[in-house]
Amino acid sequence: MRERVVTASVVIIGNEILSGRTQDTNLAHIALQLNEWGVRVREARVVPDVLETVVAAVNEARAAFDYVFTTGGIGPTHDDITVDCIAAAFDVPVVVSEEIAAVIRRRPAPPQVMESRMRMARIPRGASLVRNPTGGPQGFRMDNVFVMAGIPAVMQAMLSTLGDQLEGGSVVHSRSVTAHLGESEIADGLEDIQRRYPHIDLGSYPFYRDNVYGTTLVMRGADETALERVLAEVRGIIEARGAVPRDP
Amino acid sequence: MRERVVTASVVIIGNEILSGRTQDTNLAHIALQLNEWGVRVREARVVPDVLETVVAAVNEARAAFDYVFTTGGIGPTHDDITVDCIAAAFDVPVVVSEEIAAVIRRRPAPPQVMESRMRMARIPRGASLVRNPTGGPQGFRMDNVFVMAGIPAVMQAMLSTLGDQLEGGSVVHSRSVTAHLGESEIADGLEDIQRRYPHIDLGSYPFYRDNVYGTTLVMRGADETALERVLAEVRGIIEARGAVPRDP
Repeated sequence: MRERVVTASVVIIGNEILSGRTQDTNLAHIALQLNEWGVRVREARVVPDVLETVVAAVNEARAAFDYVFTTGGIGPTHDDITVDCIAAAFDVPVVVSEEIAAVIRRRPAPPQVMESRMRMARIPRGASLVRNPTGGPQGFRMDNVFVMAGIPAVMQAMLSTLGDQLEGGSVVHSRSVTAHLGESEIADGLEDIQRRYPHIDLGSYPFYRDNVYGTTLVMRGADETALERVLAEVRGIIEARGAVPRDP
Repeated sequence: MRERVVTASVVIIGNEILSGRTQDTNLAHIALQLNEWGVRVREARVVPDVLETVVAAVNEARAAFDYVFTTGGIGPTHDDITVDCIAAAFDVPVVVSEEIAAVIRRRPAPPQVMESRMRMARIPRGASLVRNPTGGPQGFRMDNVFVMAGIPAVMQAMLSTLGDQLEGGSVVHSRSVTAHLGESEIADGLEDIQRRYPHIDLGSYPFYRDNVYGTTLVMRGADETALERVLAEVRGIIEARGAVPRDP
């Protein structure tokens, strides 16, 4: 089976994530959604609302990965600097999108409020728009960089529109099985399997719940035949250790 | 007021975070705890279980920030490679810690299991140990890099022991206030305040809950007198817009 690997980086922009005030949930959502489209998240960074830092992170990421997805910093306030960062990263000026401006004007507001909201119509020159099914201002795409909102519901809506724009590769499938065994009780068998199936990513995740220690083994890879073989072998190891393979 | 800024980077090691299978909660916990000790998280990276990638991330982070905290990859299985990564980053060999080995030997196990568990006694030469109040194998410290477990309860226990080892700077305090106003309804006033108080980080976070749109304004900084002034001004803006300043 020939595997085509398409990669992505996620750049999470926002002081509130780095201060611990806000728990990010966007990364996990983006990773799961992209995987369905055959795109694998290979790195994520959380960066503060500081122009040079965001520019450096985006420029490194867009050179190293097929796609980059950013979240956060596209609202109407002074701390929303993502548009300026992306324009700086691509060395283009910021322009006003008449399409976004029209969406903003649909909701009446006093002049001062309208002026603030118009900040959200600013995009880097050459950007195309990312639709926003929640009805608010759009995100945008520059080359291989997709710029989305930080609010999870809005980000999720924007991301849901992007499937057609991504050229995905092989989709990663997964199998998993759980045992009431400590990690070290199955560690040696796993290493041997991993060596024989280098294209399958075999992960071992210990847990403690309901007063029981256990380990979940997760196999991930594009080749479903190989996945089934690895799953059978892992189940065999669990049984050989006198335990019962369970659904996670 | 002279402000002393001490910074940290968090490196989250683990394929399971990048695949979306596991929701990271360690970053927010570390950020909140470090802030109490006067250390500010300025960047976080999520990297896969790939040696060269982890080594590069750790080496960049330890050069750029006062402290680095890693989570994940210190268990007994083949995918636990953090020890090897840190040793490679510092260009030192991996050795066996007799202190950790003694902790591991306290829990009897069959020879093969004991051998796997002994993987957790490996540390980079020159590392000092990070205590593990949960009773399991320890983490370790190399220079300004602290290596902790990935399981949240274990990581939190390890982190709780580190306060004495960190030389913190000014502690960041915060104030916050909420209004049932859209972000754009207060955006212009905020920008002016931010300009006059450059040492206070004034963040604006829109939300939608219980059928109400609102915005929470968060002020963060070391200077509590300035914080109180900014809070009063922000409350003034909210009232001037005809809304009620509320506790978030």
